[in-house]
Amino acid sequence: METIIKEINDRLEKIITTTIKKGDVQDAMLYSVMAGGKRLRPLLLINTLRSYGVDYHPYLDAACAIEMIHTYSLIHDDLPGMDNDDLRRGKPTCHKQFDEATAILAGDALLNESMNVILRMNINNDLKIHLLQILYKASGMNGMIYGQQQDMYFEKHQATLEELQDIHHYKTGCLIAAPLAMAGAICAPADQEKLSDLGFTLGLAFQIQDDILDVTSDTETLGKPVGSDIENHKSTYVSLLGIEKARAYEEQLFQSCLEKVYGLTFNHGLMIEMINKVMKRVN
Amino acid sequence: METIIKEINDRLEKIITTTIKKGDVQDAMLYSVMAGGKRLRPLLLINTLRSYGVDYHPYLDAACAIEMIHTYSLIHDDLPGMDNDDLRRGKPTCHKQFDEATAILAGDALLNESMNVILRMNINNDLKIHLLQILYKASGMNGMIYGQQQDMYFEKHQATLEELQDIHHYKTGCLIAAPLAMAGAICAPADQEKLSDLGFTLGLAFQIQDDILDVTSDTETLGKPVGSDIENHKSTYVSLLGIEKARAYEEQLFQSCLEKVYGLTFNHGLMIEMINKVMKRVN
Repeated sequence: METIIKEINDRLEKIITTTIKKGDVQDAMLYSVMAGGKRLRPLLLINTLRSYGVDYHPYLDAACAIEMIHTYSLIHDDLPGMDNDDLRRGKPTCHKQFDEATAILAGDALLNESMNVILRMNINNDLKIHLLQILYKASGMNGMIYGQQQDMYFEKHQATLEELQDIHHYKTGCLIAAPLAMAGAICAPADQEKLSDLGFTLGLAFQIQDDILDVTSDTETLGKPVGSDIENHKSTYVSLLGIEKARAYEEQLFQSCLEKVYGLTFNHGLMIEMINKVMKRVN
Repeated sequence: METIIKEINDRLEKIITTTIKKGDVQDAMLYSVMAGGKRLRPLLLINTLRSYGVDYHPYLDAACAIEMIHTYSLIHDDLPGMDNDDLRRGKPTCHKQFDEATAILAGDALLNESMNVILRMNINNDLKIHLLQILYKASGMNGMIYGQQQDMYFEKHQATLEELQDIHHYKTGCLIAAPLAMAGAICAPADQEKLSDLGFTLGLAFQIQDDILDVTSDTETLGKPVGSDIENHKSTYVSLLGIEKARAYEEQLFQSCLEKVYGLTFNHGLMIEMINKVMKRVN
């Protein structure tokens, strides 16, 4: 897994340093993309392809494009006009390290260039269109951005458990389901629905983990300030269910992920390894 | 021309009201898109197709996608972290009418959804990819966003005339050349270069006009505060050349546009009409 993460990182660095014009915005894009995430989304695409016995190298750039979209969403989410966060992955957020205008443009540019990365891929145009359709539906106003909107709305209003599920289905789930659905589109169209469903369950488990870590971890381990949900008056699984029930629900969802993996006809080992790794994450 | 502008407006309204989820962000997108621009960029695509005798209806959505990108760039440009403008097209800017977070997301969503609009078009996939390649190169870090970065940089540094041309080539020129190049890709591939070149000349003329209007117009006519360039310490054609020479340069560029139109083998009337209309604009 570490070799693949290095491949993803090298490719991301190469995309940003060699395909676009130099300047502050490029520096800011590189800073945020290379700040060291878990690369969960690109790994989901790559490891699903591997589980089907497919060489992932022709699709590495699609994996990088998803990570670029994820990074843009974090940069904009951290802005003073949004969550106003100073720390991300243990480092100053983009607008703290550079300035607000540069961070706005760096986010815009990552979204825009993610498209260009896929458009340049050496795959047939029908598949390219299919991958673009999955990804930009997931990241847009019927996906992640809608989730962001609902998340903001429920900072000022009390959310029910159902509304909270809805927020996270869109805000977190869509961009975790997308790499799985994209892998399906590439090599197993008949499994695309099941793969996407696995992604949404994993996304929800991941989000509940986030809510739990926000109250049980410390800033150094988490790489961002703990307790920010409480400060932002966010409804979370912990605030709605209490810590014990949230933990039980998280455990139940991860078990459901494992079952869904075994329900697919591919080599299970890699995906089980990935889910176990996510289950044990501390940040 | 008015009928076509109405068609563009109706289609933009329909795209935003029927293809995405409801909420503040959708309201903000609709507010900014329908705040009433000149629709220069979509008209350039449509009228170029008409000049070649091609029915523009199958390509109306591509024209709308360009306007959505233009609108997103204005929303983000007006943000407190960027130019901090309160007024645009005679109305409160998006973040003034809604709030900053909603404006950030509305801009993001317009960029993302512009992609989905083109992806949904009923044209063959090869042409779709070609149009996407032209558009997202023009709007990204080798195009408009790079121009934005340079524009910001030269608020703090004195620009030479050459550097100013470079800023505007990217910031304004790319997204005015794109619809012309896209029309070329659709119906006259051999003319694509010439059409793009016409667009860059028109973009530069348009920008010099902007600089002149900023010092000669009034806020009511212009729909945004006059004198903002001076306030933001921007290098402009007026500040570098003086008003008389800037006017002469603008006139020269518009003449060059007319010559370039006559250098193309299509029906010239519509494009001449468009350029004359731009020449006489007061806002």
